[in-house]
Amino acid sequence: MERSGSGGGDGRRARATAHELARYEALFAARTRGMKSSAMREMMALTEQPDVISLAGGLPDTSTFEPKLYASLMADVAAESTARALQYGPTEGMAATVGCIVEVMAAEGTVVDPAEVIVTTGGQQVIDLVCKTLVDPGDVIVAEAPTYPGAVPTFSAYQADVEQIEIDADGMPIDALESTLDRLAAEGRRPKFIYTIPNFQNPGGVTMSLARRRRLVEVARERELLILEDNPYGLLRYEGEPLPTLHSLDAQAKGRGGASDLVIYLGTFSKIISPGLRLGWAVAPRPVLEKLNLGKQGTDLCSSPVTQMFVAAYFRERSAAGEPAWLEYVGRLRNLYRTRRDAMFEALSEHFGEGASWTHPQGGLFVWATLDERIDTTDLLALARKTEGVAFVPGRAAYVDGRRGSSSMRLNFAGMPEADIREGIRRIGSAIREQLGLLGSLTGASAARRSGAPEQAPPQSPDAGDGARLADVVALPRRGEQPATRRHSDR
Amino acid sequence: MERSGSGGGDGRRARATAHELARYEALFAARTRGMKSSAMREMMALTEQPDVISLAGGLPDTSTFEPKLYASLMADVAAESTARALQYGPTEGMAATVGCIVEVMAAEGTVVDPAEVIVTTGGQQVIDLVCKTLVDPGDVIVAEAPTYPGAVPTFSAYQADVEQIEIDADGMPIDALESTLDRLAAEGRRPKFIYTIPNFQNPGGVTMSLARRRRLVEVARERELLILEDNPYGLLRYEGEPLPTLHSLDAQAKGRGGASDLVIYLGTFSKIISPGLRLGWAVAPRPVLEKLNLGKQGTDLCSSPVTQMFVAAYFRERSAAGEPAWLEYVGRLRNLYRTRRDAMFEALSEHFGEGASWTHPQGGLFVWATLDERIDTTDLLALARKTEGVAFVPGRAAYVDGRRGSSSMRLNFAGMPEADIREGIRRIGSAIREQLGLLGSLTGASAARRSGAPEQAPPQSPDAGDGARLADVVALPRRGEQPATRRHSDR
Repeated sequence: MERSGSGGGDGRRARATAHELARYEALFAARTRGMKSSAMREMMALTEQPDVISLAGGLPDTSTFEPKLYASLMADVAAESTARALQYGPTEGMAATVGCIVEVMAAEGTVVDPAEVIVTTGGQQVIDLVCKTLVDPGDVIVAEAPTYPGAVPTFSAYQADVEQIEIDADGMPIDALESTLDRLAAEGRRPKFIYTIPNFQNPGGVTMSLARRRRLVEVARERELLILEDNPYGLLRYEGEPLPTLHSLDAQAKGRGGASDLVIYLGTFSKIISPGLRLGWAVAPRPVLEKLNLGKQGTDLCSSPVTQMFVAAYFRERSAAGEPAWLEYVGRLRNLYRTRRDAMFEALSEHFGEGASWTHPQGGLFVWATLDERIDTTDLLALARKTEGVAFVPGRAAYVDGRRGSSSMRLNFAGMPEADIREGIRRIGSAIREQLGLLGSLTGASAARRSGAPEQAPPQSPDAGDGARLADVVALPRRGEQPATRRHSDR
Repeated sequence: MERSGSGGGDGRRARATAHELARYEALFAARTRGMKSSAMREMMALTEQPDVISLAGGLPDTSTFEPKLYASLMADVAAESTARALQYGPTEGMAATVGCIVEVMAAEGTVVDPAEVIVTTGGQQVIDLVCKTLVDPGDVIVAEAPTYPGAVPTFSAYQADVEQIEIDADGMPIDALESTLDRLAAEGRRPKFIYTIPNFQNPGGVTMSLARRRRLVEVARERELLILEDNPYGLLRYEGEPLPTLHSLDAQAKGRGGASDLVIYLGTFSKIISPGLRLGWAVAPRPVLEKLNLGKQGTDLCSSPVTQMFVAAYFRERSAAGEPAWLEYVGRLRNLYRTRRDAMFEALSEHFGEGASWTHPQGGLFVWATLDERIDTTDLLALARKTEGVAFVPGRAAYVDGRRGSSSMRLNFAGMPEADIREGIRRIGSAIREQLGLLGSLTGASAARRSGAPEQAPPQSPDAGDGARLADVVALPRRGEQPATRRHSDR
């Protein structure tokens, strides 16, 4: 079902519509007036066509979850209490679900008090509620560059002034952060919070080193700044040693019984079980938690008890080996995604032209690839979709100015089978060569890229493009279309 | 599980907390700085104790939904595609679910184009997104007095200036609306939208007459104003003839193929199937719909495909008579709630003292009762809970100023069995007598109240109370507590 005009098509109706457009425009709030439906958005909608391989979305592979188990867990919910599943739940979340959250965080070595947890409608809602709680128009948020494309429109909706710190192979350089904070302080401005994705950053793929984590927490404590730690993928590590969360580093520093008073932690079930549940959470200092709760009441009252009870039922399941079933499932995802990541590395080595490089994530969902600087990946996407039938997230979506990152792209290796990843990368490689051909000639740049290349920061480009906001559309399929994983799960 | 202190309890920790409180206060946005956790909130939390009868929540009776059917529908979802249920869905909603929405609206005689529908995380999210789209701080919203208690904190969070028009037995008087609009125009102010609940108003229980509906649409057209039509209960009519929605009146006026260009319609599955699904919807003119979509992307990406596919599976079900199962279910709810409403009327006649009156809703969930003007229902609630074990929503929660409505209360007759309704009203009556006793003597006012008394507008009271915001807490049980219906469904 595609959206189509509902009007009669006569001139009178068309004129009325033009008049109305102006009328609505005058009614819009300042925060939404600038939000346009970009041409990119329409184009992205087409990327979910069955013949298009999309490496764009932030989709995990939900075809790995057993339908029989799904039905059986829902039968458990019904047996426990259908009336309760179908009723309103408490704004802060159901006790059993909060217990699951405490268990997930413990699996990452982070101890939390259940009373400091609020269940949210996906991790996205945490970003929205934290902005709602803290950000007035013109307030400063410090984020990484590039940053989560889905946070960009949220920050913009709250009319925040976002300072993005370029990341490198070890995540956000804290000395660069400190310079920025010094400059802001000199201007009399204090950031409302520092937004970071320390593990397998979206979209950069890099992980913040332990030394930087420690220093970041120190800096935040010295300057009394809040940190929003966004950690959707912490348990999806495919190599290397797990690193402590910022939340746990701060809590440990405070000693026995101390909770972090400067880290707002964002977690989600989306990447370890399912995004379709729309369940995430925040752990926050009490005064902030109280405001998040009030904000959530006004926003959607509570998150679904249907899906909360499903999670609670799942966490009671044990594998044949007696292990919690959810942990065993995450283990299976790790193995699957590791293989797919490695397939993507191989395909990138084989198909991406000279001058291209990419990060080497130890976990998570995404690789960040950077091309010849003459290529604008927004243009490339148009070409790639049309002539090759492949999609990715253009780098600009990860920058609030909509301009930087123009030669980079985010590639998801988790949501597709290996064969599609290889074919998708082959197609993008083909589009790159075509684009370079259109630009005049192939570059003779160095052959530095290789699969095991050191991680590198995405370069900035002073490209003067139109800054179309892409982030709002890249993650989701369109109504009436099958999400990519569905297509593949049918094989 | 109750929230409890996590600190060590030593003086140093306590001092740090006090310092932090000041620190956080400075970080809060203007929109949240004024939101306090009121003493009322803590008290309300206690109303969900097993020995308390709560007539406070906006809860339907979900114990009427068959657990076997729930499990079987979820098995259908699993058979159709677990992968799709557990994956992200489109921001605007899944096509099959939108089809159900079109069906629900057709059952109320309202024809809509699926392309003008967006699925939301409950009806509450529509209110939030409409404010996000249209309201800058200081902008005017016109609402009814009293209005939906859950909208009050949302309007406040967007720092709107809310003008509340006193309703009477026929809903919002349009002449009073026009006077207000004239006054605002003279001040150079134009409301961003007019918020109304035309059917079985929450909390007033009254229904807007057909003549007023027609005139409201005319006024909005003449003045080019938007209307937010909140209609959760339209299908829950227990007597009298259904009235057309504002949306359909406007669309009909525009002729064949015309869609309403001034009504934003809010619908929800919460009261006809289940609030636990967290699924509502908006129907809006295209330019507004586009912004609602962008706002939703930044807020929670999409609503749950798990619950969306559940709804779609339910709408495919047929009763033994070949009728759509959901329509048959709504018919059963109608019969059940009619009986409970009538039980509440009887109990009110029996137990509420002289000087009390109440509305006579033809549908919906709520009765609005108004007591002797010396009684402040906020104080009464404290007493009623403590000495009688019963709860209701104090009238102030339905006023943005938190002061008017101080002698009124909202009573839910849908969520409890008859016996509890009668006992709950008996207890409140007892608390009223106790309170009047405390005030010195029983009133000698007229004996005008009777079950069939004409509907009346809630009176204003110039009470100078503290304006505690209650709306944010009245609808929901607390974590770890069983919702009221669960308790009763176990009988």
